[in-house]
Amino acid sequence: MSYDIAAIRADFPILSRQVNGKPLVYLDNGASAQKPQVVIDAVTQAYAQEYSNVHRGLHYLSTLATEKYEGVRGTIARFLGVKDEHEIVFTSGATEGINLVAYGWAMPRMQAGDEIVLTIAEHHANIVPWHFLRERQGVVLKWVEVDANGDLDPQAMIDAIGPRTKLVAMSHMSNVLGTVFDVKPVIDAAHARGVPVLLDGSQAAVHMALDLDALGADFYAVTGHKLYGPSGSGAIHIKSARMAEMRPFIGGGDMIREVHRDRVIYNDPPMKFEAGTPGIVQQIGLGVALDYMMGVGMVNIAAHEARLRDYARARLDGLNWLNVQGNSATKGAIFSFTLEGAAHAHDISTVLDKKGVAVRAGQHCAGPLMEHLGVTATCRASFGMYNTVGEVDVLIEALELCHDLFS
Amino acid sequence: MSYDIAAIRADFPILSRQVNGKPLVYLDNGASAQKPQVVIDAVTQAYAQEYSNVHRGLHYLSTLATEKYEGVRGTIARFLGVKDEHEIVFTSGATEGINLVAYGWAMPRMQAGDEIVLTIAEHHANIVPWHFLRERQGVVLKWVEVDANGDLDPQAMIDAIGPRTKLVAMSHMSNVLGTVFDVKPVIDAAHARGVPVLLDGSQAAVHMALDLDALGADFYAVTGHKLYGPSGSGAIHIKSARMAEMRPFIGGGDMIREVHRDRVIYNDPPMKFEAGTPGIVQQIGLGVALDYMMGVGMVNIAAHEARLRDYARARLDGLNWLNVQGNSATKGAIFSFTLEGAAHAHDISTVLDKKGVAVRAGQHCAGPLMEHLGVTATCRASFGMYNTVGEVDVLIEALELCHDLFS
Repeated sequence: MSYDIAAIRADFPILSRQVNGKPLVYLDNGASAQKPQVVIDAVTQAYAQEYSNVHRGLHYLSTLATEKYEGVRGTIARFLGVKDEHEIVFTSGATEGINLVAYGWAMPRMQAGDEIVLTIAEHHANIVPWHFLRERQGVVLKWVEVDANGDLDPQAMIDAIGPRTKLVAMSHMSNVLGTVFDVKPVIDAAHARGVPVLLDGSQAAVHMALDLDALGADFYAVTGHKLYGPSGSGAIHIKSARMAEMRPFIGGGDMIREVHRDRVIYNDPPMKFEAGTPGIVQQIGLGVALDYMMGVGMVNIAAHEARLRDYARARLDGLNWLNVQGNSATKGAIFSFTLEGAAHAHDISTVLDKKGVAVRAGQHCAGPLMEHLGVTATCRASFGMYNTVGEVDVLIEALELCHDLFS
Repeated sequence: MSYDIAAIRADFPILSRQVNGKPLVYLDNGASAQKPQVVIDAVTQAYAQEYSNVHRGLHYLSTLATEKYEGVRGTIARFLGVKDEHEIVFTSGATEGINLVAYGWAMPRMQAGDEIVLTIAEHHANIVPWHFLRERQGVVLKWVEVDANGDLDPQAMIDAIGPRTKLVAMSHMSNVLGTVFDVKPVIDAAHARGVPVLLDGSQAAVHMALDLDALGADFYAVTGHKLYGPSGSGAIHIKSARMAEMRPFIGGGDMIREVHRDRVIYNDPPMKFEAGTPGIVQQIGLGVALDYMMGVGMVNIAAHEARLRDYARARLDGLNWLNVQGNSATKGAIFSFTLEGAAHAHDISTVLDKKGVAVRAGQHCAGPLMEHLGVTATCRASFGMYNTVGEVDVLIEALELCHDLFS
């Protein structure tokens, strides 16, 4: 194994810092990941030496910034396993990407009574845009539940597709359970019925090598800040056939070819869906982050995180006063848990924080799943490419302290 | 005069660089401004030492990032002259802000035949969202023209407000002509008729001290990248009475209080309008940029730029083969021009670039204004707080070279 965890950790400056007098153990990667120095340097370089607005200028800095910015489209395409980089739309994150689909594709073609099939494990980013369609035009949301193990039966998704189904919208990997859903049969079955599929790849893209052209989803949203890139960066892959069906979402500069008093001629996709001055420097930083991940190798990252998952699962299983949500065979290194007894997730996270361990407490933007699981809140330890087996031990030790304090 | 231009220039690292072997003369501030080192340092610090997602965490880094991020709301409010910081909505820029108003406020309350009054000098960001309403629900756009001087008669705007007018949408300062429009009488008259007013402050906020509470517009959009802040940062001021009338625009995490299978309870404004993981670090950087501007003093910046404008105007007036668009008494330091004869704006900008002078060539995202002016494209030299009289001289010299080359 050539996974040089020490070298990788040294690439992330924040990992050297202390929190509350303890070394930082950052296990909140499901919420947002830290940034390697190469990304920070790229951002600094862009602002300090190479900054300009893009697309509309002919001067040196504008051309330079445009080349760097537009080059990221190809990097994202490569990272996602997409051949045609014109199928990549830059966004400020997965939320904007999914809203683009909701407003640009679904809204003009869905009538009252039309249905969207989604899993109970969706993040609010892949729920609220569809609730808008429910509230505003009577679209029906059909929920498919996960089982006690946190698994989703693909056949249950397929069975939920009816004659009124216009879209399947599902997560590729649960941000709470860690389950990687078996999406391929769902995509194929949906397509056989003429129903497009949107995948929320916010978590999955961070943890595995993707080949979206082979997977075949119509829409695949990712967010840069979870991919070790800057906040406010992101993209969505949209198949060109779906792009051709979409109307624009955000209106402004860049997404038009001509604007007159009484008419507009829109730009070609993907620019048709990218309005105004974009997140220039953030996207440049995202390109560097993806190159960094690909340099380490997504397969290597996945193997490292699988080892972390196995070790963490074994150790957490040893704590018989701790309930982990989700135990799928496909589970990634995301552990949501509660402690038996009175301890609230928020109190647990506060104690962990005193030991330098950063976890998230709450609903994790997954209200319907929480209701389904019958919990009001959990703690979540979510691992990334730079976490270590030793950090699992620190987590366990801190949890044992919680148990002592609250039991 | 205590305006220490040398010290200010030293604060912006990119201004020390050369372009094509010449010192950079950056006159493309209307498109996007450069960033002072304090902003770059704040971005670096945020990523290297203080990064986390915001709002939802309780751990140390999350609390720290949230405090820094939320603190910017008050900074923006102070900068804009707004007492209630809850009237500030974070956006990725003016484009998103205006689309928020179009989708969240205008769309659900405008019927076919309802009217929006706007000036011919609007930027596409303040046109295309209204064209969406025209295309999708039959809203009528009423255009008020500027005169040959580039001035707008406020009475013409007021006269255009009819019984079907539901909104006045206008720029506070033209990004092409440099005219600062006399918006106060328009706002007062519109309000007397019960019509809200949206101002696009993308240019104005950069160049003058604002007191939005006194001005009284209902919506005021600004963009961070023009305010010496990071790309992808921004805000819109929305009066709380208008906020209360708005439905949410982008759906996702953070903008909700509860999400269930069959219903959503939205968060209170302003968070109701801020979905998903926001541009955390960009907004932190924007706060530092605004503090930097306020440290120099908006009155001082305006005075410096008035001197630049006067000097540039006098020197450009001396070139009798050059046509400057807009000569208002209220004009800021933005000069759009064409050269008599065959030279295309793009060719001019290319020659200027060889001399290190960065200007923009094209339509400046103002198609209807270009048609009104009867030009297909102009060059635009737009000045900022760090430009100098000496840079005006470099511009003039380079223009004289263009004249020699193309005449």
